[in-house]
Amino acid sequence: MEWRPEIGSNPVITLTTDFGVDDPYVGMMKAVILSIAPEVRIVDLTHGIGSHDVMEAALVIASGYAYFPKGAIHVVVVDPGVGSSRRPLLVVTEEGYFVAPDNGVLSRIYAGSSRVACLELTAARFFHHPVSQTFHGRDVFAPVAAWLSRGVEPVQFGSPVKKWETLRLPEVRNLGRNGLTGTILRADKFGNLITNLRIEKFQDRLQAGKFSLSIGPHRIHQLCRSYREAPGPEPFVIWGSLGLLEISCNRASAARRLQAGVHDEFEMRFQ
Amino acid sequence: MEWRPEIGSNPVITLTTDFGVDDPYVGMMKAVILSIAPEVRIVDLTHGIGSHDVMEAALVIASGYAYFPKGAIHVVVVDPGVGSSRRPLLVVTEEGYFVAPDNGVLSRIYAGSSRVACLELTAARFFHHPVSQTFHGRDVFAPVAAWLSRGVEPVQFGSPVKKWETLRLPEVRNLGRNGLTGTILRADKFGNLITNLRIEKFQDRLQAGKFSLSIGPHRIHQLCRSYREAPGPEPFVIWGSLGLLEISCNRASAARRLQAGVHDEFEMRFQ
Amino acid sequence: MEWRPEIGSNPVITLTTDFGVDDPYVGMMKAVILSIAPEVRIVDLTHGIGSHDVMEAALVIASGYAYFPKGAIHVVVVDPGVGSSRRPLLVVTEEGYFVAPDNGVLSRIYAGSSRVACLELTAARFFHHPVSQTFHGRDVFAPVAAWLSRGVEPVQFGSPVKKWETLRLPEVRNLGRNGLTGTILRADKFGNLITNLRIEKFQDRLQAGKFSLSIGPHRIHQLCRSYREAPGPEPFVIWGSLGLLEISCNRASAARRLQAGVHDEFEMRFQ
Repeated sequence: MEWRPEIGSNPVITLTTDFGVDDPYVGMMKAVILSIAPEVRIVDLTHGIGSHDVMEAALVIASGYAYFPKGAIHVVVVDPGVGSSRRPLLVVTEEGYFVAPDNGVLSRIYAGSSRVACLELTAARFFHHPVSQTFHGRDVFAPVAAWLSRGVEPVQFGSPVKKWETLRLPEVRNLGRNGLTGTILRADKFGNLITNLRIEKFQDRLQAGKFSLSIGPHRIHQLCRSYREAPGPEPFVIWGSLGLLEISCNRASAARRLQAGVHDEFEMRFQ
Repeated sequence: MEWRPEIGSNPVITLTTDFGVDDPYVGMMKAVILSIAPEVRIVDLTHGIGSHDVMEAALVIASGYAYFPKGAIHVVVVDPGVGSSRRPLLVVTEEGYFVAPDNGVLSRIYAGSSRVACLELTAARFFHHPVSQTFHGRDVFAPVAAWLSRGVEPVQFGSPVKKWETLRLPEVRNLGRNGLTGTILRADKFGNLITNLRIEKFQDRLQAGKFSLSIGPHRIHQLCRSYREAPGPEPFVIWGSLGLLEISCNRASAARRLQAGVHDEFEMRFQ
Repeated sequence: MEWRPEIGSNPVITLTTDFGVDDPYVGMMKAVILSIAPEVRIVDLTHGIGSHDVMEAALVIASGYAYFPKGAIHVVVVDPGVGSSRRPLLVVTEEGYFVAPDNGVLSRIYAGSSRVACLELTAARFFHHPVSQTFHGRDVFAPVAAWLSRGVEPVQFGSPVKKWETLRLPEVRNLGRNGLTGTILRADKFGNLITNLRIEKFQDRLQAGKFSLSIGPHRIHQLCRSYREAPGPEPFVIWGSLGLLEISCNRASAARRLQAGVHDEFEMRFQ
């Protein structure tokens, strides 16, 4: 694994969970990390993943990790199978390190990385004891990330595995030559509806005024380059900051206006 | 600009946004900052500004920045005009640095500072690329703040500008010699109603038992020095921690009890 | 006080409050801390304590502090008596430092520590001025914690006191030899109901299939070792990550299903 990225002298650990911020769980994970690695930087990517929503976490970590320094350690804990036989993993790519349960939450990381090494976390000497049956975020994933940040070699944490769980993430389906079906991946706090249409695949086909997007009873024909460009309160589409097409309104919630949200499908017709 | 404050060897970047904490947007801003300035301190002032509420953000940053060390860099991103022609700014005062869109969100900073230098951010080599049309917090403001913390000179980021947007913030209006009309600026999590009456201007006139505050159908006559001093569940006024008069209840929400909130006006009569 | 723990070269300050994250109050506390101690680590345990809920904060700090490094400084601000005659305290145990109002919020810390030294904070030179009547978190507790992290001796902050407030925390009551009454201490974000039954006292008596837990009209007979072990959607009990018995559902909220929450009592019968 000579190709693995350097963790460097300013290591970063990121946290992505469904724990919310009202309970002390995230604080406890940070406590365990700091007890092992007092100088590591800890950054919250988000703790607002829906409870048990592995799919949402898979999309969020995939959209966020690349903004962090190469060699960052990403802890992803959405873990409805905690305490069961699902395995805890350390996954190494050329971009970074991922510590997470083997439940598909890293599906997009596997798919988007040219090299992947995957280890099952079995070396209990790196865990926080006693290991609870319900909170491996604190007792397994956080301490492993902390020890990794201090220079422990990945192979010390466990044995290589060749297979792992993957989720079937919503794909764009073609409807003949001039149409497709897409899916809403996420509604954000502003009510922007983030779709699964990638800019590099669809930018050329999507011309202002030359398409029609149907979602429920609604039709959208407008493509804007900024929110303010929208002439009125009607929803439009815009290339969003994640490189995905989004359905938005100017200073209002497209999710509320269209009564649409995650998992909803839409149809797009090109002229 | 020799008068500008030193950023020093322990630079601090603060973040104030309307992004909430459930999406990964704040985490992405921190990722971009740390990729440029691995040792900078990042502190959230709040991400709970109401979506698109430039006025609320203007009040919050003005009430909070002075508690930070002189020379701190304050990133304020409430930015409904992102991607349009509104300009991104770096504002320098004797107290600190402000990186924000030119939409009035820094109105109180301009008004409260004896010296102000303002630059339009045009030097794209300091941006995160590709620059999206919808998230300049990540692609423009965060990386500029990071480079600034590393010692890049303000003038390197762009050209000085002489004019900027300002908001009309709610002012106290006199009603003859013995009365005034004030405005609720904010309701906090506890239901305290924060008004625009400043302690240094009104402390002398406001004597216990010698005033009457009318808000909707309610009358308040009580001035307390602590929440617990209140004899019963009735609302009272108190000089709050921001140097502003607040309407509060003891262990209860004045906002709920009075059915009042931001932008509501009240009348005050002195005897 | 030679027995007091070392604060060390990587001091940590933790924050536990009922301030929420939508107002700038937590950011202001961090600003005051960093202005005094630019290199200290600040970690949020949680700001999600219910407004004025001293009991909840007492349970949360007691369940969380021990995961932090020995010698950490824990600031706990749930303070409905702020500005009144309630005293501000610095409490030293062999495990760490606690800065909090004297309202019982440290009850479980006193009870669980073999040595306790308690000082009333009176040395105003360590406060942030002007000291407001409504926000001692910012003006008293934060700056004292910051100066403490920089090496100021505890005795410099004030005078020893021998008595302090304590809360009556819900205790398990025996119902003859084969039963007991317990209390729900907290419902977490997932709807897990955390009880006051400690694993070390009840693990032996609680055997799968040999107990009956009654809460409202509901009966629970199942003890699981992981969430996924549950055969169906029915609630079960499980030893949780705080060392306490919890009532849970697999991928669903026990709180919602049982219509139960904090302060609710339940009966347990052993066979």
